[in-house]
Amino acid sequence: MKIYRLLLLLFFVSLTTYAQKINRIEPPNWWVGMNHSQLEIMVYGKGIATYKPFINSEYIQLIDTKRTENENYLFLNIDLSKAVAGTFTIDFLKAGKRNNFSVDYELKERNKNSKNRKGFDSSDAIYLITPDRFSNGDTSNDIVKGLRETKINRNHDYARHGGDLKGITNHLNYINEMGFTAIWPTPVLINDMKRSSYHGYAMTDFYKVDPRFGTLEEYVELSKKAKEKGIKLIMDQVANHIGSEHWWMKDLPTKDWVNYQENFEKGGETIYSTHRRTTNQDIYASKIDKEGMTNGWFVDTMPDLNQKNPLMAKYLIQNSIWWIETLDLGGIRQDTYPYPDKHFMSNWAGAIMDEYPNFSIVGEEWSLNPLLVGYWQKGQKNKDGYESNLTSTMDFPMQRNIVDALNEDESWDKGFVKMYEGLANDFSYAKPNDIMIFPDNHDMSRIYTQLGEDVVKTKMALGYLLSLPRISQLYYGTEILLNDTAKPGDHGLIRTDFPGGWNGDKVNAFSGEGLSKDQLDMQLFLKKVLNYRKNSEAIHSGKTIHFGPQNGTYVLFRVLNNEIVTVILNKNKKDITLDLSRFNEVGLQGKQVKNIISSEAFIWGDSLKIAPEGITILTTKM
Amino acid sequence: MKIYRLLLLLFFVSLTTYAQKINRIEPPNWWVGMNHSQLEIMVYGKGIATYKPFINSEYIQLIDTKRTENENYLFLNIDLSKAVAGTFTIDFLKAGKRNNFSVDYELKERNKNSKNRKGFDSSDAIYLITPDRFSNGDTSNDIVKGLRETKINRNHDYARHGGDLKGITNHLNYINEMGFTAIWPTPVLINDMKRSSYHGYAMTDFYKVDPRFGTLEEYVELSKKAKEKGIKLIMDQVANHIGSEHWWMKDLPTKDWVNYQENFEKGGETIYSTHRRTTNQDIYASKIDKEGMTNGWFVDTMPDLNQKNPLMAKYLIQNSIWWIETLDLGGIRQDTYPYPDKHFMSNWAGAIMDEYPNFSIVGEEWSLNPLLVGYWQKGQKNKDGYESNLTSTMDFPMQRNIVDALNEDESWDKGFVKMYEGLANDFSYAKPNDIMIFPDNHDMSRIYTQLGEDVVKTKMALGYLLSLPRISQLYYGTEILLNDTAKPGDHGLIRTDFPGGWNGDKVNAFSGEGLSKDQLDMQLFLKKVLNYRKNSEAIHSGKTIHFGPQNGTYVLFRVLNNEIVTVILNKNKKDITLDLSRFNEVGLQGKQVKNIISSEAFIWGDSLKIAPEGITILTTKM
Repeated sequence: MKIYRLLLLLFFVSLTTYAQKINRIEPPNWWVGMNHSQLEIMVYGKGIATYKPFINSEYIQLIDTKRTENENYLFLNIDLSKAVAGTFTIDFLKAGKRNNFSVDYELKERNKNSKNRKGFDSSDAIYLITPDRFSNGDTSNDIVKGLRETKINRNHDYARHGGDLKGITNHLNYINEMGFTAIWPTPVLINDMKRSSYHGYAMTDFYKVDPRFGTLEEYVELSKKAKEKGIKLIMDQVANHIGSEHWWMKDLPTKDWVNYQENFEKGGETIYSTHRRTTNQDIYASKIDKEGMTNGWFVDTMPDLNQKNPLMAKYLIQNSIWWIETLDLGGIRQDTYPYPDKHFMSNWAGAIMDEYPNFSIVGEEWSLNPLLVGYWQKGQKNKDGYESNLTSTMDFPMQRNIVDALNEDESWDKGFVKMYEGLANDFSYAKPNDIMIFPDNHDMSRIYTQLGEDVVKTKMALGYLLSLPRISQLYYGTEILLNDTAKPGDHGLIRTDFPGGWNGDKVNAFSGEGLSKDQLDMQLFLKKVLNYRKNSEAIHSGKTIHFGPQNGTYVLFRVLNNEIVTVILNKNKKDITLDLSRFNEVGLQGKQVKNIISSEAFIWGDSLKIAPEGITILTTKM
Repeated sequence: MKIYRLLLLLFFVSLTTYAQKINRIEPPNWWVGMNHSQLEIMVYGKGIATYKPFINSEYIQLIDTKRTENENYLFLNIDLSKAVAGTFTIDFLKAGKRNNFSVDYELKERNKNSKNRKGFDSSDAIYLITPDRFSNGDTSNDIVKGLRETKINRNHDYARHGGDLKGITNHLNYINEMGFTAIWPTPVLINDMKRSSYHGYAMTDFYKVDPRFGTLEEYVELSKKAKEKGIKLIMDQVANHIGSEHWWMKDLPTKDWVNYQENFEKGGETIYSTHRRTTNQDIYASKIDKEGMTNGWFVDTMPDLNQKNPLMAKYLIQNSIWWIETLDLGGIRQDTYPYPDKHFMSNWAGAIMDEYPNFSIVGEEWSLNPLLVGYWQKGQKNKDGYESNLTSTMDFPMQRNIVDALNEDESWDKGFVKMYEGLANDFSYAKPNDIMIFPDNHDMSRIYTQLGEDVVKTKMALGYLLSLPRISQLYYGTEILLNDTAKPGDHGLIRTDFPGGWNGDKVNAFSGEGLSKDQLDMQLFLKKVLNYRKNSEAIHSGKTIHFGPQNGTYVLFRVLNNEIVTVILNKNKKDITLDLSRFNEVGLQGKQVKNIISSEAFIWGDSLKIAPEGITILTTKM
C-alpha cells in the first residue's frame, strides 16, 4: 500500500509539472495481468498531437499512435502483455528538444481474484438507491462551489437534496439487516449540469465522482464496507450519452465523436432519437428509423455518443473496466441498453465478460414484450445471429403482469392468469433466473401507488416476485410504502427522501421512529421475506412448479432437495379452504411446514384454511 | 375409370355379402405408391377378433394383427411396399370352415403429382366459409331422415339453415372473381348431433360427408371445379375430439380410446380441459395442469380422443391422408391445435408433410402471444427441442394489434404503433410469410363490428393485412360488411346467412342486388385489392419495409424487382401532405405510381397529398 501511494504521488507530481501541456490522461491508470493486454490511452492537451510520443521500455510497447483532426488529442495504443506493475514513462518529443516533456503512467497490481469476481445472480436481492434522496451522510459536500448547480432544496422534487455516498455507507447495517445482498445506487459520477443534476444520468466526466456525492475514496470505501457485509456494489453506467456540459463538448476529439455532431456544432436543432426500440430487431425496419433510433439524442441535454468510432468504443469499454477494478464492483447496470449501436453493446459486454467470466451486467430494455427482453440476453439463439453477451435483462413484462394481475378482478383472462401465463413465457428465455424482476424502479410509479395504496396487494406483489426464479430488485423505501400517489409517475416525487436519512427528520425509517403501523408492518414483512430468501437455495436455484389459478387463488412452489417453499396468493375476501390433493406431485404430504412470516408450523394435510386476501409463504425448512 | 368403378362395385358387393360380419373397414380404400408403405386397417364387426385374418398375396403382406379388449375390432397392419393398384382379398378364418369369409380391399392409383401438390402460401387469399350459412345449392338435402337434427330454421342462429357443398360449388365464379385463390369451408363431415350440428366440429364419423351438406361425390366435385379455377380446397379437420354421438362411443375399441373414458362409461361428470394452453410450453407447469389441458374434454358433447394410443394415432393420420388423396386437397386447417397430445400433433403433421413435402397445414392456436404462435411453426428453434412440423399458424396477435391500432387514438404507445411494433415481432418467427393473417373468423366478432361499423377503418384493416407478408384469410361476407353488432361475439350471429345464397333472398350479394352503397363500395374495394394481390409478386414474396408511425400516418412498402407496393394509412381527419423524402431508401423517386383503387397515376415526387382518414395503396405496376 505504501508503494502504491508513493507511485500515485509521483504520478500526480509528474502531471502537475506538465500541466501546461497535458490536461488529461485517460484512463488515469491501468492494471497488469488483464486478459486483454492492449491499452488505449487518451492524452488531451493543447497541441499534443504535434508531439511524438515515445516509450523507452523493454516491457511496454507503444504499438501505434492515433491522431484525429483535433490536434489536442492523441490516442496511444500500448501493449502490456509483458508489463509489470509500477510506473512507466511516456516521452513527448518535438523538434527542438526544449519542448520535450514526459509523463509517468501507473500500472497497478490487480486485486486478488479480481478476474473471478462473482456478479449478482438469483441469490441476490438488490436495493436500488437514488443517492441524492437516501441519506445525507456529509453535509459539508451539499454545496460545492464551481459547479453549475450548487443549491440544495429538499422542498423541490427536481433539486438536489444532499444525499451522498457517505449516507449509503452509514446505513449498510440497515440494508444488510433488511436482507439485501447488493446495492445499486443510480449514477454518482459528476453531472455538472445546470438543472436536475441529482439524477446522475447526464455525466460530464466518466472518470470523476460528483463531489456533491463524495470522493472517489468514499466510493471505494462504500464498496469495501458493503463487501465486508456480503453486499455487492453494482455501478450504474451510461454508454449511450453524456451530459451536454461534458468537457468533450467544448473540444470534440473527432468529427464524429457524438452523433449529429455537425448539427450540434452549427447550433442546429437537436435531432432526437426516434425511440423506436423495435428497430433493433425488426427485419422490416427502415434504415432511416434504425439510424434515428441509434443516433438521435435521448434528450436535448444528452449528446448521443458515437460508439461506432473505434476510439470511443475502446474508451467506453476501458472506462467500465477501470471502475470494476477501482471499485471492486459486483456488477454493472447499463442504462438505455437498446439505444447505442447494438454491435458495440455486444462488444462492450463481451469485453467485460471476457475479463470477468463470472461477472454480471444488467441492461435496461424497457419493453413489455418478452421477445425483446429475451433478445438482449446472453445465450439467446436469435435468428439474426445477434449475441448480446449481456448476462441479465430486466423483466418489465412480468412487472406489468404482476401489477395487472393484482389490480384486476379475477376472470378467465384477467387477474392471476396474467402472472401465471406471464411466467410461462420463461420457456423462451436463455436463462430466466438471470433476469431481474422488480416491483418498480426510479423511473416508474412506486409499487404501492401502482397497486392503489393497497398494503395487502403490495405484500402479494413483493412476496411473489421475491420467490420467483429471478434476480430481485427493490427500490429504497418500498419497505415503508413510499408512494407518488399525489402525482403518479412524477420522477422527482418517485425519488422521495428516505425518512431518517437527514438529521432532524421527524420520521426515521432506519430506527422505525415515527413510522405508521402499515409501514412498520411492511418493513417487517419484507425483512422476513428477504432474510428467508437470502439463505433459501430453493428460491435461488430450485425447481419452479405453479398451478393454474383457480377460485381466486394462485399457488407456486420452489423446490430444491428437502426445501420446499410454497407461495399461496388468495384474492378471496373471505377464508377459503384449499384442497391440497391438487398439489400432490410436489410431495408435501405429511411434511411439516412453517409460515415464514408468523412462524406458525403445521403438517401439510388434505386441506388448508387460508385467510382472506393475502399471501401465505410456507417452508419445510424449520 | 371403368375399371375403377368395377372394382368399387366389387368391393361394395363383397362388403354387402358379409355385412353381417363386418360393419366397417377404415380407411375404406388406400393408394399404392405412398411414401409410407404400411397401412393400418381397422375392421369393425361383431366378434371379428375371433377370426384370424389372412392375406394370400405375393405383393401384399399382413405384418401383424392387433386385437384389443373389444373383440369387435381388429387392426391389420399391412405392408404395401410391393403392392400394385387393384383389389386384394382379406380372408377371415375361423375354426370350422363354415364361418370363414373374405373381403376385398381396394388399392387405387394416386393422382398424377399427388405427392408434389402445392399447399397454400403467401400468394393465397383464402375465403373462409361456414357452409350451412353460405348458400343452399340443393334444397333436397335440407332435411335428411334418420339424423338426430333434421329441422332447418333460418330464423334461429344455432339451427341449420340449409347451406351445402353444392351452394359453394355454384358460386365458385363469384369467389374467383372476387380474387380469392383458396376456400376453407368449416367441417362438412357428418355431425349427427342433436343440436348445433351446423357448425361441424363434433364429427360422428371421420369418413362420411354430412348428407345435409351433400355427398362425397359433391365434395370431390367442389374440389375439382375449384381447382379448374385455380382455387385450392382446404379441409378443416379435427384431431382433438369427436361428437359424443360418434359411432365409436357406443362400442369403444380400447379402454383408452378417449380420455377420461372410465369416467364417461360410469356416467360420471365430464372432466373438462383446463384450457391452460400455456402448459404446452411452460417449463414450470404442474403435471396435473398439463394433463388436464391435453386430456380434458373441450366441451360436454365432445369426447377427447387419446392420441397417445398408437392405434388412434395411426387412424387419425391415415384419415387425413385419405382426405387429401380423395379430395385432391390444397391444404388442411387443423382445429384446436394445442389441445391434443403435442407430440402426436408433431407426428401427424410430420407424416403428412412426409407424404406431401409442398403441402400446407395451418393450426389454430388462439393466442395473442407471439411466443406461442411461433412455437408451433415448423422450423422454430424451440428450446425444448419441440419440432412442430406445422407449416402455418394463425396470427391472432397481429389481428388484435390491427383492431386495437385502428380503434385507439394515436399516442406514443397507442394506435398505429400497435401495428408497427406488432409486425416487428416477425423477427422471431421461423417463417413469418407462412403465417395466416385474418381480420376475423367464424369464432370471432366480425371485423366490421370490431371496428365499430366504421367502413373506413374496415378498409384500412383489410387493405393493410392483405399487403402483409402473410397468407391471408377473409371470412365470407366481410366483403359486404356482415356484422354481429346486435350481439357482438355471438357465434350463431357471426355466421349470418350470405344474402343471395338462398332462393328468394331479397338481397343478393352475388349479383349486387339490394346491397347498400357501403356494401357495394366495400365489395368493389376488396375485389380490387384481392385481384391486385393475386398477381403481385411483391406482396407474395417481396421485401417489406415500414416506417414508424408519424403524425397519424403509417407507411409500409412491399418491394420485389420493379414492383413497389406502397400502403399509406392515414388517421387524420383532414388532408395531409406527406414529405416523401423520408422514404427515399425505397427508391420510388421519379417513378410512376398508380392507385390500385382509383387507377389514378402520377409521378412519385417530393411530397404527396393524402385524403383524410383512409388507406392509399399505390403500385409501380401499370
